[in-house]
Amino acid sequence: MQKATTNKISMAVIRRLPKYHRYLRELLYQGIKRISSKELSEIIGFTASQIRQDFNNFGGFGQQGYGYNVEDLYVEIGKILGIDGHYNTILIGAGHLGQAIANYAGFDDYGFHLAGIFDIDKNIIGSKIQNVEVMPMENISKFVKNNNVSIAYICVNASSAQKITDTLVPLGIRAIWNFASVDLKVPDNVTVENVHLIDHLMTLSYFLDEQKK
Amino acid sequence: MQKATTNKISMAVIRRLPKYHRYLRELLYQGIKRISSKELSEIIGFTASQIRQDFNNFGGFGQQGYGYNVEDLYVEIGKILGIDGHYNTILIGAGHLGQAIANYAGFDDYGFHLAGIFDIDKNIIGSKIQNVEVMPMENISKFVKNNNVSIAYICVNASSAQKITDTLVPLGIRAIWNFASVDLKVPDNVTVENVHLIDHLMTLSYFLDEQKK
Repeated sequence: MQKATTNKISMAVIRRLPKYHRYLRELLYQGIKRISSKELSEIIGFTASQIRQDFNNFGGFGQQGYGYNVEDLYVEIGKILGIDGHYNTILIGAGHLGQAIANYAGFDDYGFHLAGIFDIDKNIIGSKIQNVEVMPMENISKFVKNNNVSIAYICVNASSAQKITDTLVPLGIRAIWNFASVDLKVPDNVTVENVHLIDHLMTLSYFLDEQKK
Repeated sequence: MQKATTNKISMAVIRRLPKYHRYLRELLYQGIKRISSKELSEIIGFTASQIRQDFNNFGGFGQQGYGYNVEDLYVEIGKILGIDGHYNTILIGAGHLGQAIANYAGFDDYGFHLAGIFDIDKNIIGSKIQNVEVMPMENISKFVKNNNVSIAYICVNASSAQKITDTLVPLGIRAIWNFASVDLKVPDNVTVENVHLIDHLMTLSYFLDEQKK
């Protein structure tokens, strides 16, 4: 994970924010208006003191003895996460995993709009997934420039992922969601989030193996 | 992440092992036989001292001044990760994401064999994905018992994931790979690996937003 600006907030805190956001959304749906750090701790699993510390990073949202206003907290954490914005995204690689990502319901709710899909396979170029056209790779450069694209989802083979990254970065892509089983080399001002599926499975097998001992 | 046995090795170290394994595999393919912690550091991004510390956790594999034998290290880390074994897995939920996981090439190479797929949709029950039959949910219990299944991949909606987990745990499933956007409640002897897609996107948008400031 690379980061351009001064590191004010630790990665550990940032990694917890989406989880807070998810739980607060659920509380909102349930009609819960206020929650103490202790109550939040019970449902989310972090300690109450951890929660208070985390929220203090952003100036704190609570009032001593009254707990937190769920909606305010939800909106504020959403703002910190930058999901009150709108991001145009592109997907490279419309294989099985790419198609699943393109079909995933809910990214739009968070402001992530899939604007274009790219692949090398002539059989699927021209087809549509969720109303988004699959285009040939040669069009990426023009498309990114004309559509204010800021995030790319990479769903190609490990062997092609770096080459595609090297094409995307000079076009101004600043965030990459990488599903290829390889670590990408990018400049410091580009952020990469990895989903390394095999690494997850290895972690599971480690724990299964430990249990046998 | 829950763990049954005494915690000898820290989670941070365990999380780095699949990455070591991935890089060592690549080195093996390239025909490289020996590597120093310094050289490994340059390609993997961890410090040389971190690498030596990590390997010392498992008794160390290196010989002062000679570096590490790549193949030995690869095999040993594979053993520690438990991927020299064979695991029967099942997949619950054959929607877009479930289908992508079922189609993902390469899990078998690491000893993870997809033995069965389960869904509630009558239109796909009876069909096959990569030669694995999609079966009705009612069959899970019998199937798990008869096929020595140890890992379940959960690719259902957030609203159904906990209910399915509660079915799987009493059947003896000890490892769950959860793609649903919800944290599962499980006993201490069950390990859960989460792939929370929305959380990844939120982290990306945080960094994009930070860059604008």
